[in-house]
Amino acid sequence: MTITLALDAMGGDAGPEMVVSGANIALQEAHGVSLRFLFFGQESIIKTELKKFEKLQKISSIIHSDIIITNQIKPAAAVRSGRKSNLGMAIEAVEKGEAQAVISAGNTGAYMALSKIILKMLTGIDRPAIPAILPTLNGKTVVLDLGANIDCTPENLVEFALMGEAFARQLLKIDHPSVGLLNVGSEELKGNATVQTAAHFLRELPDLNFQGFVEGDDITAGKTDVVITDGFSGNIALKAIEGAARLIRHFLKEALSGSLRGKIGYVIAKPAFKALQNRSDPRLYNGAVFLGLKGIAVKSHGGTDAVGFANAIKVAISMVQQNFIRNIEERVALLTSQAETE
Amino acid sequence: MTITLALDAMGGDAGPEMVVSGANIALQEAHGVSLRFLFFGQESIIKTELKKFEKLQKISSIIHSDIIITNQIKPAAAVRSGRKSNLGMAIEAVEKGEAQAVISAGNTGAYMALSKIILKMLTGIDRPAIPAILPTLNGKTVVLDLGANIDCTPENLVEFALMGEAFARQLLKIDHPSVGLLNVGSEELKGNATVQTAAHFLRELPDLNFQGFVEGDDITAGKTDVVITDGFSGNIALKAIEGAARLIRHFLKEALSGSLRGKIGYVIAKPAFKALQNRSDPRLYNGAVFLGLKGIAVKSHGGTDAVGFANAIKVAISMVQQNFIRNIEERVALLTSQAETE
Repeated sequence: MTITLALDAMGGDAGPEMVVSGANIALQEAHGVSLRFLFFGQESIIKTELKKFEKLQKISSIIHSDIIITNQIKPAAAVRSGRKSNLGMAIEAVEKGEAQAVISAGNTGAYMALSKIILKMLTGIDRPAIPAILPTLNGKTVVLDLGANIDCTPENLVEFALMGEAFARQLLKIDHPSVGLLNVGSEELKGNATVQTAAHFLRELPDLNFQGFVEGDDITAGKTDVVITDGFSGNIALKAIEGAARLIRHFLKEALSGSLRGKIGYVIAKPAFKALQNRSDPRLYNGAVFLGLKGIAVKSHGGTDAVGFANAIKVAISMVQQNFIRNIEERVALLTSQAETE
Repeated sequence: MTITLALDAMGGDAGPEMVVSGANIALQEAHGVSLRFLFFGQESIIKTELKKFEKLQKISSIIHSDIIITNQIKPAAAVRSGRKSNLGMAIEAVEKGEAQAVISAGNTGAYMALSKIILKMLTGIDRPAIPAILPTLNGKTVVLDLGANIDCTPENLVEFALMGEAFARQLLKIDHPSVGLLNVGSEELKGNATVQTAAHFLRELPDLNFQGFVEGDDITAGKTDVVITDGFSGNIALKAIEGAARLIRHFLKEALSGSLRGKIGYVIAKPAFKALQNRSDPRLYNGAVFLGLKGIAVKSHGGTDAVGFANAIKVAISMVQQNFIRNIEERVALLTSQAETE
């Protein structure tokens, strides 16, 4: 089976050059998978970039649009331009079955609003959420929402829990993933009214392995397989973790370069440092799906480079191969039916 | 001048043994500073602990109370027991001038509520805030609030900015500390209504070096000298940073112990790793003042050990030496008068 991917060629800080180079890296590393790419955006620019990669060019098509969704456009304006914009057309390709997934590094708000309208939501889910997969002391943890939903009701948080649980089952291959709700303390009485009410609802769900409140440091400790939070705190927590990782690597570099023994030790242990660097490279964790949609829409970090964008493409490929939407839909349907009969 | 410190002997997960040992470490390391300690709590237990340290015992007094503020007591109940509890008596010692600062590793909510009632708030400040001082790529950054105020209005955030600016001037010795407001993006339109309104107020303050919105990773990048946020997101961000630092150190250990070259490199560069360990030891950053009070009240992390508690004592000593309250009061008075005339 050939997997066809719709790419927003104009999204991301580094634009078409990054997107096309990223597709080329993904193609080179797609061992045994037959790929096709549809690039949506300004034809002349995309054409110039594609010429650099002969093999990629052969399996790619360009769909031109004069209306480009930039980072400055507000979601409401993006929705008005609808299926005529390059991003709207890319999403529509998935809805029509011409592509199996869409990937963009562009305007998050516009991308989400257009995806919601064009691809539609799963039954029982009101708003899409962005999950991130973080490395932890004992494996991986799914955290959501990462910034798609700034103001959340308790009901939104419950939906995130259902989607996050289904996502972790699918992704981490765990039968009964544990779920924690992010808060300022793990005691039952802590936090604001929103998390209190959400926790009350979650405790009532018979088939959900809800472990109560977790704290900021429990994310990377891997206390639960899934961590639920609103998009405001979630975005801040994720970026704080990225920043802290950078700081510790900086401290390490300073410590080693500050003495002769440090320098010699570094040279000898270099492969180990390289392994550490690779393991904590944020580009490897790039590529977040919009959970809750009836189609696969992957969001790449806007500031990423071609390597990071290639990873977002790989995330999309893996989801297509796993029959992602169908599996999530079945699990969410089961959990929401339980939530409603409560 | 002798500095007298009031210690809540019963607070913290490790209790009187930790508090008394911590005081002993602080005493040993207080070169040239004349200290006295007042221990508030159960006399018999404190006495037993004090007997272990002859020199400490000589400069210490025990003030007995049968009413102990534990972690299980709610703030409202603590307030009712008021000045009769061990914690209330310790705070009162500062109000009466018998001690220059109070230090507790106990119940945060009760400690803050009692401090607010007994020590009173500075003019123009409605609620106390807890700042943390974090290491960054280029120095140090003050972040507040760290969990004292879960639900915040725009006015609360503005007060945090005024207090944080005054604190950073005092602590970091910077003439015009830059101030950022934590948000999910640095663009002016991002975020919820609370941060939007607070940013609007802050932009109008003529004497405040307000730099607009900052993101989670800007904290440890040191983008601004002060980062303002509500206690919910602030607590999560701080703990997320602690957790991420732990994860990277764990990855480093795994990477080095996974190969012979890694192990040899580690042995040779050991002093450098030791320096890294020391620099990122969270115990060294223990001890947060309640900002906005008319007296010095320092909160130690509840889970700390004697070394961490000694550091909280050192924070208190340094504040007494710097005439902290008077300086903060003057600066906050100047800034709030500008805020009011706007």
